[in-house]
Amino acid sequence: MFETLLLEIDPRGVATVTLNRPDKRNAMSGEMIADLAACAAQLAADGDVRAVVLRGAGAMFCAGGDLNWMRAQIDADGETRAHEAGKLAAMLGAWNAMPKPVIGRIEGAAFGGGVGLACVCDVAIATTDAKFGLTETKLGLIPATIGPYVIARMGEGNARRVFMSSRVFDAAEAQALGIIASLSDDLDAAIEAEITPYLSCAPGAVAEAKALALHLGGAPAQAEVAHSIQALVTRWESDESAQGIAAFFNKQKAPWNK
Amino acid sequence: MFETLLLEIDPRGVATVTLNRPDKRNAMSGEMIADLAACAAQLAADGDVRAVVLRGAGAMFCAGGDLNWMRAQIDADGETRAHEAGKLAAMLGAWNAMPKPVIGRIEGAAFGGGVGLACVCDVAIATTDAKFGLTETKLGLIPATIGPYVIARMGEGNARRVFMSSRVFDAAEAQALGIIASLSDDLDAAIEAEITPYLSCAPGAVAEAKALALHLGGAPAQAEVAHSIQALVTRWESDESAQGIAAFFNKQKAPWNK
Amino acid sequence: MFETLLLEIDPRGVATVTLNRPDKRNAMSGEMIADLAACAAQLAADGDVRAVVLRGAGAMFCAGGDLNWMRAQIDADGETRAHEAGKLAAMLGAWNAMPKPVIGRIEGAAFGGGVGLACVCDVAIATTDAKFGLTETKLGLIPATIGPYVIARMGEGNARRVFMSSRVFDAAEAQALGIIASLSDDLDAAIEAEITPYLSCAPGAVAEAKALALHLGGAPAQAEVAHSIQALVTRWESDESAQGIAAFFNKQKAPWNK
Repeated sequence: MFETLLLEIDPRGVATVTLNRPDKRNAMSGEMIADLAACAAQLAADGDVRAVVLRGAGAMFCAGGDLNWMRAQIDADGETRAHEAGKLAAMLGAWNAMPKPVIGRIEGAAFGGGVGLACVCDVAIATTDAKFGLTETKLGLIPATIGPYVIARMGEGNARRVFMSSRVFDAAEAQALGIIASLSDDLDAAIEAEITPYLSCAPGAVAEAKALALHLGGAPAQAEVAHSIQALVTRWESDESAQGIAAFFNKQKAPWNK
Repeated sequence: MFETLLLEIDPRGVATVTLNRPDKRNAMSGEMIADLAACAAQLAADGDVRAVVLRGAGAMFCAGGDLNWMRAQIDADGETRAHEAGKLAAMLGAWNAMPKPVIGRIEGAAFGGGVGLACVCDVAIATTDAKFGLTETKLGLIPATIGPYVIARMGEGNARRVFMSSRVFDAAEAQALGIIASLSDDLDAAIEAEITPYLSCAPGAVAEAKALALHLGGAPAQAEVAHSIQALVTRWESDESAQGIAAFFNKQKAPWNK
Repeated sequence: MFETLLLEIDPRGVATVTLNRPDKRNAMSGEMIADLAACAAQLAADGDVRAVVLRGAGAMFCAGGDLNWMRAQIDADGETRAHEAGKLAAMLGAWNAMPKPVIGRIEGAAFGGGVGLACVCDVAIATTDAKFGLTETKLGLIPATIGPYVIARMGEGNARRVFMSSRVFDAAEAQALGIIASLSDDLDAAIEAEITPYLSCAPGAVAEAKALALHLGGAPAQAEVAHSIQALVTRWESDESAQGIAAFFNKQKAPWNK
């Protein structure tokens, strides 16, 4: 049982994990990060689970990092910051390395860390009206621990544009960028059609095939993960991040936004 | 002269290599792997050859690894397995590194190792009705030594989905995935149009340009090749692979395919 | 003030750098390479500059390396060649690492090194009638120091084809290859629409987000840069490059172009 997640496992071994903070647009609080890490470990270890669907409650996937959690890190000491950034990175790494297929069901929108969650899935399927963006730089923040996974999908050229501009983009562009595999307005049917083929494949072979793909091209090296954690900690220490978050909570424009 | 291949070289120096086991859907037996390795060495060394076309006999490119060869590896000892997996990897590496343009002519279908052959070409052109798939996991096997080349084309995100699901996909999707450069229902004309520009370029410059691209981004490191060989050997040792191959030859469903 | 460039900075901090050798189709001479390096350093250091547009004078982006400069390298001694190739590589690296958004405005055409300049931009927007090509191998040369940046955009599979064939391709194909982000026949409006979002983001966060993307995926390692420099020097020493350049200036066919 998780405070911030719902978990259901059907008789075929298809687990559905639902980010369950709909009143907060499923933003990732410290609790949700911890719950997602624990849930990933549980599903990885459960031999009866053959596929995982990750989705959000309400008509929304995930709005990204909870800004109260973000503010707490900006106000925290260096040790706490490093600890929290490390927990976020470890959770993303655990989902990325899940030894079974993970299908993201992206309704409504995914922003910031929500895009990161979509990118640690093996496949993400979105509604045609879904919106996306890495809007961190608008708040004086940066997409850091999600960086390796987003770049693995969209390439560094696209990532430079998407990271720097905080542009919001639509589902068709998300598909062109490679972060969404397909679009559908009947997600139930699309997810079901996606899951079916995996269930006729040998579970051990599936796990080894994914591990090989990760080894050859998709798992960021330890040094890269450490670099992204440090980049986030450094950014939380900046004046800009404090100004950006304060402006947000005070409903003011940030000083750079003229 | 090769037992399993046809080789023709035209007056312009365009070599055409035809996988010639049409009754076996041009599946790669041990002999074909050895022939392809010897043929790659011969063409690389022949200063009169300026471009290579790789195709299949009949209306089929290549159905992948021959399942009799695969079964023999599952029944073999560890030394033989390592030797055979290494031969397959070395053959793919030789084609990938061929110091002249290699154009894949993909008629009908390419599965498993056949997709790998398409991915070690510089350009692959397919008929619009061609079918593709990495269907190894359905048999309890994994796409292993072809992994680095497939991932170099489709990216690791797409590879995770394609490797794990054993999904069969069409030519349009193969093009979107980056494993096919263009589609045509007049392959003779399309291949001819593709070849012509290379023939007006300096052969030494062409070879150095390819070597540079390989060095900067396309040649898997020795450690990656070794890892993919070991992954294949480990898989051949698994119960799942024995079960999957036995089910295939006995025309039964594999135990995981409910 | 630069001999070969125009530089304007508007009140918002948007700098426009114009390659200004229109009678030479903005080809990169030794002076232009030096000017571009000095200009990159100046813009990187100028805290008031928040975004950079790179364009060409006249209805042309850049025809690539100036062939007189290229001929001078072929006639030069080894030390001079290494020095000049190193300057070119360092200039490209400086633009690639510019700690603020760089938008390429691609009118008319980009060939050879001009494609390289487009690829060190964060975003390149082209007219729908623009033409592209890496036509070095036709002249006995190779795309070398631009290689890492071109491969980062189009992937090594596409790069192998584009590098070896000297094929000229249109703007739609350039977009499909990932070297152009979008097409427009109203470049003034398209560039303005592209710039606006960056100006509402925190400059420090923008710089750190770009640095992270470069660190994780887009900045070639020193060893790769050194390799590409050496590849260019080696090629300048070849008989083919001397023959190709001589044929060009003598308006003859090169010996390999039958």
